Amino acid sequence: MKVLIVYAHQESQSFNAALLARSVEVLTAHGHEVRISDLYAMNFDPVATAGDFGERRFPDRLQYDREQKHNYQRGTLSEDIAGEIEKLFWCDMLILQFPLWWFSVPAIMKGWLDRVFVNGAVYGSGRRYDTGGLNGRRAMVVTSTAAYPGMCAADGLVGALDVILWPIQNGALAYAGCNVLPPFVSWSVNFVDEATRRRYLDEYGARLAQIETTEPLFFHPLGDFGPDWRLRPEVAARAVGQGKPTTA
Amino acid sequence: MKVLIVYAHQESQSFNAALLARSVEVLTAHGHEVRISDLYAMNFDPVATAGDFGERRFPDRLQYDREQKHNYQRGTLSEDIAGEIEKLFWCDMLILQFPLWWFSVPAIMKGWLDRVFVNGAVYGSGRRYDTGGLNGRRAMVVTSTAAYPGMCAADGLVGALDVILWPIQNGALAYAGCNVLPPFVSWSVNFVDEATRRRYLDEYGARLAQIETTEPLFFHPLGDFGPDWRLRPEVAARAVGQGKPTTA
Repeated sequence: MKVLIVYAHQESQSFNAALLARSVEVLTAHGHEVRISDLYAMNFDPVATAGDFGERRFPDRLQYDREQKHNYQRGTLSEDIAGEIEKLFWCDMLILQFPLWWFSVPAIMKGWLDRVFVNGAVYGSGRRYDTGGLNGRRAMVVTSTAAYPGMCAADGLVGALDVILWPIQNGALAYAGCNVLPPFVSWSVNFVDEATRRRYLDEYGARLAQIETTEPLFFHPLGDFGPDWRLRPEVAARAVGQGKPTTA
Repeated sequence: MKVLIVYAHQESQSFNAALLARSVEVLTAHGHEVRISDLYAMNFDPVATAGDFGERRFPDRLQYDREQKHNYQRGTLSEDIAGEIEKLFWCDMLILQFPLWWFSVPAIMKGWLDRVFVNGAVYGSGRRYDTGGLNGRRAMVVTSTAAYPGMCAADGLVGALDVILWPIQNGALAYAGCNVLPPFVSWSVNFVDEATRRRYLDEYGARLAQIETTEPLFFHPLGDFGPDWRLRPEVAARAVGQGKPTTA
């Protein structure tokens, strides 16, 4: 497979850097091609502005998503965005690797989603979920946190992991058409010993060895929803966002 | 009350700009003091880097949250961060106003949280939720979306609103100690007519007229959790992150 890793950590001596190195090693050993968007190293600009557009369909009032579509179609998006879109459509699998900050991605990665997941390419004109622009691709969240696993259990202090990751896994990755594999989380990295960190690296490697066959998480396809945008009466909720009970 | 509005929209002709203007008008008319952090106008830098710290406790390897605490205590955080922290502790109520992008805040606002909600001030050393650093303050999410209300219903296409907003409302605002008021959402703004937009402005004004008495959302206090960080057996889940059914 062709794997794109979008990576957000500032520190080359970090545990996240070790995870990244391990992933390249394992993926390459398994015959996958790997490209990396190292957002800090690229000095990636996360702020969506009018400067992202070489042309304006609506010059008087910026409507960011509509200009995304217009400029994508005309090939007039800014160079940094166009370069990331090229990588995105090159890949068969997208890995988002980041430390969990405020129960979400760091700003530099949020801006990668805001600016690179463009209307007209990744979604739009009714295309989303199983008809999304990244349809057929796999995706995976790889994150680290100071939290202990119990804190993200089904009834944990900060909330169930599948609720915390809903906006990223469902709202961005599944919405765009990806089959989302279960996340890989390195727990309480600030507090564990070196042996545990080594175990995390091995576990991550084992997960990556199976990316072609791992069963994706379930998110409801478009056809499960009625014209009122709610689950059809005969469809049972199978994802937390639609009312399935939280899981550990 | 002293109200800080953190605002993230690039376009002065936008509906969000109209909402902001209305909020200043209504809040001032009700005797509240208002300050605004207009992140785009300030050219706020959302990217957390080593440059945020005048001193380093751990010069060899950047550990962002530990340096936040160290530099907050020493008064050596970068000027832009220190200025925002001053506003944050000045206020009795924090409003985050933004268009919902990928079911979260735009990157420029995520960076405001990443850099301004610092360890040692807003949380840390066990202080969080009802013991968080912003304890006693109120907070509110004010957002706009292209989505129709049904899409964010209890079983809606993109997921229940309380699940979508969990990382912001629980993970950031409640975690930091705020009492979080119900969010104000302007629905399907791209598609509604001018009369509906005017109605949204009036409804927002009416909500702001009651900020001192509005009942906050419920999030579990620290005491509801056992030493395993999970709800004590005798405590029923009353928030979606801990397993309460989703609501429209």
